[in-house]
Amino acid sequence: MHPGPYERHRELLHQAVRAVATGERCAPFTQTTWRGAADAGMRSSRTAAKVFASLLGRPFDLGQPGELGRVATESSPYGLAMGIAYPRCDPAALVAAAGRATAGWRVAGLHHRAGLVVEMLRRLNTRSHELALAVHHTTGQPLPAAYRAAGPRAQDRALEAVAHAFAESERVPLELRREETRRRGQPLTVCGTSTLVPRGVSLLIGCPDYPLWNGYPGLFTSLVTGNPVIVAPHPRSVLPLAITVRIAREVLAEAGQDPDVVSLAVAEPDQRLHQRLAVEPAVRIVDFTGSGRFASWLRQHAGQAAVFATRTGLNTLIVDSTDDYQGLLGGLALALCRCSGTARTTPQNILVPASGFDTDEGPKSLRQFGADLGEAVDRLLARPARVSRLLGALAGDEVPAAIEEAARYGTVVHASQPLSLPGHPVVDVRSPLIVRLGVRSERVYTREWPGPVVFLVGTESTAHSLALFRGTVGRHGALFAAVHSTDPLVLAAAETAAFDAGVHLVENVVDDLSADPSSFIADLPDAGAHFVTGRFRVLRSRHAATPTGAGADATLRRPAAALLDV
Amino acid sequence: MHPGPYERHRELLHQAVRAVATGERCAPFTQTTWRGAADAGMRSSRTAAKVFASLLGRPFDLGQPGELGRVATESSPYGLAMGIAYPRCDPAALVAAAGRATAGWRVAGLHHRAGLVVEMLRRLNTRSHELALAVHHTTGQPLPAAYRAAGPRAQDRALEAVAHAFAESERVPLELRREETRRRGQPLTVCGTSTLVPRGVSLLIGCPDYPLWNGYPGLFTSLVTGNPVIVAPHPRSVLPLAITVRIAREVLAEAGQDPDVVSLAVAEPDQRLHQRLAVEPAVRIVDFTGSGRFASWLRQHAGQAAVFATRTGLNTLIVDSTDDYQGLLGGLALALCRCSGTARTTPQNILVPASGFDTDEGPKSLRQFGADLGEAVDRLLARPARVSRLLGALAGDEVPAAIEEAARYGTVVHASQPLSLPGHPVVDVRSPLIVRLGVRSERVYTREWPGPVVFLVGTESTAHSLALFRGTVGRHGALFAAVHSTDPLVLAAAETAAFDAGVHLVENVVDDLSADPSSFIADLPDAGAHFVTGRFRVLRSRHAATPTGAGADATLRRPAAALLDV
Repeated sequence: MHPGPYERHRELLHQAVRAVATGERCAPFTQTTWRGAADAGMRSSRTAAKVFASLLGRPFDLGQPGELGRVATESSPYGLAMGIAYPRCDPAALVAAAGRATAGWRVAGLHHRAGLVVEMLRRLNTRSHELALAVHHTTGQPLPAAYRAAGPRAQDRALEAVAHAFAESERVPLELRREETRRRGQPLTVCGTSTLVPRGVSLLIGCPDYPLWNGYPGLFTSLVTGNPVIVAPHPRSVLPLAITVRIAREVLAEAGQDPDVVSLAVAEPDQRLHQRLAVEPAVRIVDFTGSGRFASWLRQHAGQAAVFATRTGLNTLIVDSTDDYQGLLGGLALALCRCSGTARTTPQNILVPASGFDTDEGPKSLRQFGADLGEAVDRLLARPARVSRLLGALAGDEVPAAIEEAARYGTVVHASQPLSLPGHPVVDVRSPLIVRLGVRSERVYTREWPGPVVFLVGTESTAHSLALFRGTVGRHGALFAAVHSTDPLVLAAAETAAFDAGVHLVENVVDDLSADPSSFIADLPDAGAHFVTGRFRVLRSRHAATPTGAGADATLRRPAAALLDV
Repeated sequence: MHPGPYERHRELLHQAVRAVATGERCAPFTQTTWRGAADAGMRSSRTAAKVFASLLGRPFDLGQPGELGRVATESSPYGLAMGIAYPRCDPAALVAAAGRATAGWRVAGLHHRAGLVVEMLRRLNTRSHELALAVHHTTGQPLPAAYRAAGPRAQDRALEAVAHAFAESERVPLELRREETRRRGQPLTVCGTSTLVPRGVSLLIGCPDYPLWNGYPGLFTSLVTGNPVIVAPHPRSVLPLAITVRIAREVLAEAGQDPDVVSLAVAEPDQRLHQRLAVEPAVRIVDFTGSGRFASWLRQHAGQAAVFATRTGLNTLIVDSTDDYQGLLGGLALALCRCSGTARTTPQNILVPASGFDTDEGPKSLRQFGADLGEAVDRLLARPARVSRLLGALAGDEVPAAIEEAARYGTVVHASQPLSLPGHPVVDVRSPLIVRLGVRSERVYTREWPGPVVFLVGTESTAHSLALFRGTVGRHGALFAAVHSTDPLVLAAAETAAFDAGVHLVENVVDDLSADPSSFIADLPDAGAHFVTGRFRVLRSRHAATPTGAGADATLRRPAAALLDV
């Protein structure tokens, strides 16, 4: 007999489950690829480029219900004409279709669902280069960075999410403990079963910079736990998620499942599609990574849903002292430039005592630090090859406007300059803007700025820096925080402040630390295990253990349709 | 050396953790008591009555901060003058005090916290009779029912919550997987730790009918996971939670912890204290059991908090057919009467095909069923001893008004009648009101009615009953649903409908099935494992594995206070 998807991927899945439980590393997709595409299905980058080119200027078909027309909202910051026309479907029709698909997906059961999801990941893996091109051309990220954020590392991260979801679901005991009660004086045993009941239709609101990296955990966790997903990308970066949705629908259809378990929702940017879908009564889960403001909006208006929001917020670096001043400058310059300041490790706010700080090269004033940092950035960007590997093209108009505005609020330590990218004459690439501010300019540095806008905030002392960190990040969130200090006491105080603010902390790592690909749970400061367990409920049915006579062998008195069709 | 609270209760705790994982029964408090108070500290009911009497007409002291005055809001439906004056504290002062207590409670660590919480339960256990009297006199429940809901069974339920919280917290691996990165071309190992960070101040909004049964899971889960708790009882039933808070504060103070880890918040009913506390920015967790309307209000307005709301909603019974008509009538009559219709198994809506249904005594019309049910109720209440054991005194004015109003909407099948309770001449006790309605009266039966108000709703068919059940309970929630059918197909369809509606289902159990004392997770249809994992976050700190020279042996350059006092 033909093995089912679960049997086919059983070993991989259980390997991942074991790794998650013990904290070992399990990154089959990354490891395969690094070894040189051991998977024969992995398309070469050249084939991928052809496939990618064949998508441009064409309708992108998905066969979804309720199609009203077509929208093309993307434009490549690298100057390529995209013109991909996605189906614009009636949101109500998509929600209704997802609702209809729910029962079948629930009944498919955990094992079958997990098997199909791993199959989706395996196919996505063979399309890594194509997905990287899609991310590159919609977000403006350099191609190597796009490959990291869209390829095998993103698939490993998704697999870890799948393993978590599988393990949490399997942990629920399905047989209920037997209870003793009494019937007319006779002892009666009541037994029963627990059932994992998915919460309902799930909505993934895509983010413009990391559509797959930030989108996969929610998408695949919802699928494994039995919830259909409507994927609503950011209008600026539709293609990576559209390809993902198409592959998911193919896998579903081939397995005889309703393809509407996964669908794509797009619209013109002014149609407020995300807001509209988020408040649909049938939408019971919302995943979102982005601004604290929209996260608050969701919490306030999408009360019918469990909202999993990760706030990008105010990435913060606290500098107290260092025994590696040159390392600090070099690593920081790298972090400021990477992906034009959109990497998750790019700090927006650097908190430094205004009186300066101690280093292995003697005390440094704030002014000196600013000048040295500016120089380190210039040194890094002196070579055009590095520029094209590190920085990305700016997508959208808001970054240039933001750079211009931010420069007005303080002393410009390093001006943002247009850079040229070899072979791309029309591309808009900028070096980071570094502005020195006083602590009083709170209105400026507590705003979330797009792109390479960095503030050097002079505080009264490190204690003051920590208080500021606790307050600003506690209110606005952050993906990343780091501290540099040679003083164990400062490190301990910084840890406590990070816990209060609700953010992970990196201590004294001068190098730009990339996000760990396979620790998505730890990566989501607002989530934890709740990221999985919040997507289903456990419901039980109880009945008498002893057959109650007639009931046990009652013949069916009416056609099934009459009852199940309600 | 004196053993700490964790060492002292270690065995009991781990026994409970094992039971939770395997689905075995672990009910040490119930089992001890049933065997006749093996715990030498268990006070006799006579001593308890004396202690209880000594509380009446007196100030109830707690030594809390921000005391503004005193409030006495309780009156016993059994005619006893309560007059207990609780401290009314400034809500902002209570929140601030809980905030100050947070750091110490977090630092105490999981094991110490769990040990102290088990110590609280052990002391509550010795006060079971006193707590039962407090519930009896504030809720009006008969004394045996109050003992079940406030004594050892409630403590076992709390212990199960503690075991869940402990196990979920322990499952998080604290050592991070080592990552390899590079420093100036040299390989660098980054390692780190994960820390469970409690979410913040927790608010327990007490319910009037089952203040301890419904309150303990949230209270003790929050405490074990490191969150201080402000307990805000319903003004009608303060004493049971006030005694609980006093015991908790004693245990905390004796262990050198800040007693404000647990505090009591009371006010005059018109001061909207629950609403005020729920929206405090520092309140990050809210537990509530009660009306769907207030649950919606919380979700809409307390967006800063994780809201764990259990909606009492529309308990529903679906009757399709039975092979034990007399059993059904007897069990149902019992369920309608128990605790004057406030038990969690009391149905409000009984859905029956208007054309009648099959039984082992032949087909029964809806009219006949109503008449038989009314008779069964009368038969049950014919003996005064049963009345005092089963029914409770009505607390508050809303029940008599509701009974009067509901009778106007349909055909009264069984009129609610005043009953007398031997030895309690002034007590207001009523038999259940049963009203027959058409399906069109949706406005009536989708309201949540207090006390013994029951609707017999005539539907078009069982399929129609199931659709109605799915719709009404899906929208308004329910604590309990049951179905009677001899047809396996109906049972299967009812299970699916219950999953869609999000409620547990009891099948063909004619007897009134009391809630399982030690399966609180299964008891909370809106929660599951998320009930625990939603109360903390996992945050990590990372640093280079190799000492970075100067940093490793740097002398402390400034006094600790300067840094930690921020």
